[in-house]
Amino acid sequence: MGSSNVDTEAKAPRKVRFRDPQIEMAHGAGGKASRRLIEGLFVPLLFGSSPGPLGDAALVEIDGARVAITTDSFVVKPLTFPGGSIGELAVNGTVNDLAVAGALPEAIVVSYIIEAGLAAEALEAEVRAMARAAQRAGVKIVGGDTKVVEHGMADRMYVTTTGIGRVMEGVNVSPQSVRPGDQVLLSGPIGDHGVTILLARGELDLEADLASDTRSVLPLVEALARAVGPGIRWMRDPTRGGVATSLNELARDCGLGIILRDDKIPVRDTVRGACELLGLDPLHIANEGQFLAVVAANQADAGLAALTQAAGGEQAVIIGEVHEQPAGTVLVTTTYGGSRVVDMLVGDPLPRIC
Amino acid sequence: MGSSNVDTEAKAPRKVRFRDPQIEMAHGAGGKASRRLIEGLFVPLLFGSSPGPLGDAALVEIDGARVAITTDSFVVKPLTFPGGSIGELAVNGTVNDLAVAGALPEAIVVSYIIEAGLAAEALEAEVRAMARAAQRAGVKIVGGDTKVVEHGMADRMYVTTTGIGRVMEGVNVSPQSVRPGDQVLLSGPIGDHGVTILLARGELDLEADLASDTRSVLPLVEALARAVGPGIRWMRDPTRGGVATSLNELARDCGLGIILRDDKIPVRDTVRGACELLGLDPLHIANEGQFLAVVAANQADAGLAALTQAAGGEQAVIIGEVHEQPAGTVLVTTTYGGSRVVDMLVGDPLPRIC
Repeated sequence: MGSSNVDTEAKAPRKVRFRDPQIEMAHGAGGKASRRLIEGLFVPLLFGSSPGPLGDAALVEIDGARVAITTDSFVVKPLTFPGGSIGELAVNGTVNDLAVAGALPEAIVVSYIIEAGLAAEALEAEVRAMARAAQRAGVKIVGGDTKVVEHGMADRMYVTTTGIGRVMEGVNVSPQSVRPGDQVLLSGPIGDHGVTILLARGELDLEADLASDTRSVLPLVEALARAVGPGIRWMRDPTRGGVATSLNELARDCGLGIILRDDKIPVRDTVRGACELLGLDPLHIANEGQFLAVVAANQADAGLAALTQAAGGEQAVIIGEVHEQPAGTVLVTTTYGGSRVVDMLVGDPLPRIC
Repeated sequence: MGSSNVDTEAKAPRKVRFRDPQIEMAHGAGGKASRRLIEGLFVPLLFGSSPGPLGDAALVEIDGARVAITTDSFVVKPLTFPGGSIGELAVNGTVNDLAVAGALPEAIVVSYIIEAGLAAEALEAEVRAMARAAQRAGVKIVGGDTKVVEHGMADRMYVTTTGIGRVMEGVNVSPQSVRPGDQVLLSGPIGDHGVTILLARGELDLEADLASDTRSVLPLVEALARAVGPGIRWMRDPTRGGVATSLNELARDCGLGIILRDDKIPVRDTVRGACELLGLDPLHIANEGQFLAVVAANQADAGLAALTQAAGGEQAVIIGEVHEQPAGTVLVTTTYGGSRVVDMLVGDPLPRIC
């Protein structure tokens, strides 16, 4: 989900108050409850003096260098699943948060919270997975910490990764840069990660050949940046809360409307089927290897071409457009000519997805 | 405890192998088992390509700027205790890891792992404590993340803080800089934090007017740096594993002997009493607001004067000296003329102290 400081710049239409009596699963799900917690508690009390947001990462100037920083905890259950594991997820997630903030990852630090009794080989497998993911993303893991809690005080292991990166020249992403007419690009099919986790838990009686999409999106972001650099207005990796939540946050933060074309949104049959069974919208399902980019209208085709020609970006597509109206809202138009409002995620239908 | 990359430079006399079958509490205690885990698993698999250590923080160069980074998870139990709480501990611990690496803290990010059902006011209290601690230390909290796990899958809340800082001019700390004759300075009495936590848990039937020493040591480090800058060879905040473990790591890493004078080591009566009851050495008890500095012989008195004249450094003292022999060992000499070897912490007599 990235560091929450994106929210420090949110121009909330009204002051959010956090009045929930206790913390529930939904507060960690990335949707409405998360936003209430962040805007009602963290922003006023903690991030009040933040120097300025970069989207999924914060920007700090150190000795003249523009340093992006992002942190995330990972509590995914189970630890391993088709296509990945918690360690890989942690490294890729941090790399991606930096990438969509327009930063090149330079270093990662990792902290483990481990339940006493965890098999050493389970830890070793994750350490190896992290090392491999870091190597693939071209980033170094430079330090870490380990805490152990009593058996029963954690669920095997939790991983927190923090990444720092160097801001790319010529890339300045911000909700405030978004203009009517801008096009919404998506790097590939959605929902694979969330549904894979669900299936891995055996919660659905469904056989499916599906794997998490966890990967570094850095090569795709770099391809896009090389092609249309300053034409990129905004980027985000739609993890918890999915594409719908990311775009709702954007719509709210830029005060414009985002209109998606239902027939353009790539969703695998398995994901669609699982969502129908569960009564969920694929637009709300978490992704771990896709990203959204809003690109200036006259550069959108060039941006799309750059993505589709890059390895892993073959299924990239333009899924929608920014409009003046309906302000602050995400609409999906169907091929039958109808349209529906897509809201942020409410509740936590798929807990501990990352 | 700081990021583990201090260990990446450790010139281990022999290759450490991690063969423990499962993770135990001791692997998070900062002593021998932790070191085995770090050197036998994390260093070879994860930190192999680390650019170079800075002690409690790693050093990364970004656009010509020297950036220090450190991460730590906090799982202290109970969440609040006399003198502090988990949030304050997290911020101070991160500030201190940067400070003793010779870096000025510039920004902190925080990630919470919260057990569903936690009272919102408990979270709010910690958020406020973090904001206050950050303000006192002059550092900004710029971003964060929140994950929620089911009731029973965490112990109320865990906090992971990561800090980045700017390396101070003229301060270059490293075990390799330490020379025979150098003096070992300590900023104040030891063991307050560990014993406070123990008493807060009610595990000792002892009434005591004692509080955690958690605080930012940055002002003291800055005072020392202003006075003797390049004369500072090495610094460390002796948290998990205490002074004994920190100095054993130094002795091993620099290949020299460290001889402490028992009568010079400041320990409050309450701490000494509790340690006697438990059969523990105060040198093994965690501190959260003290630091050790090895200073060149001819600048040690000036360094000590700078510390004792600074607010909060009044009880600073020279506790020992570096010698050629016994190489790689920490000795304590008593007023009766005897001496004893003080080893690293073994096991985890005081779990979840930070």
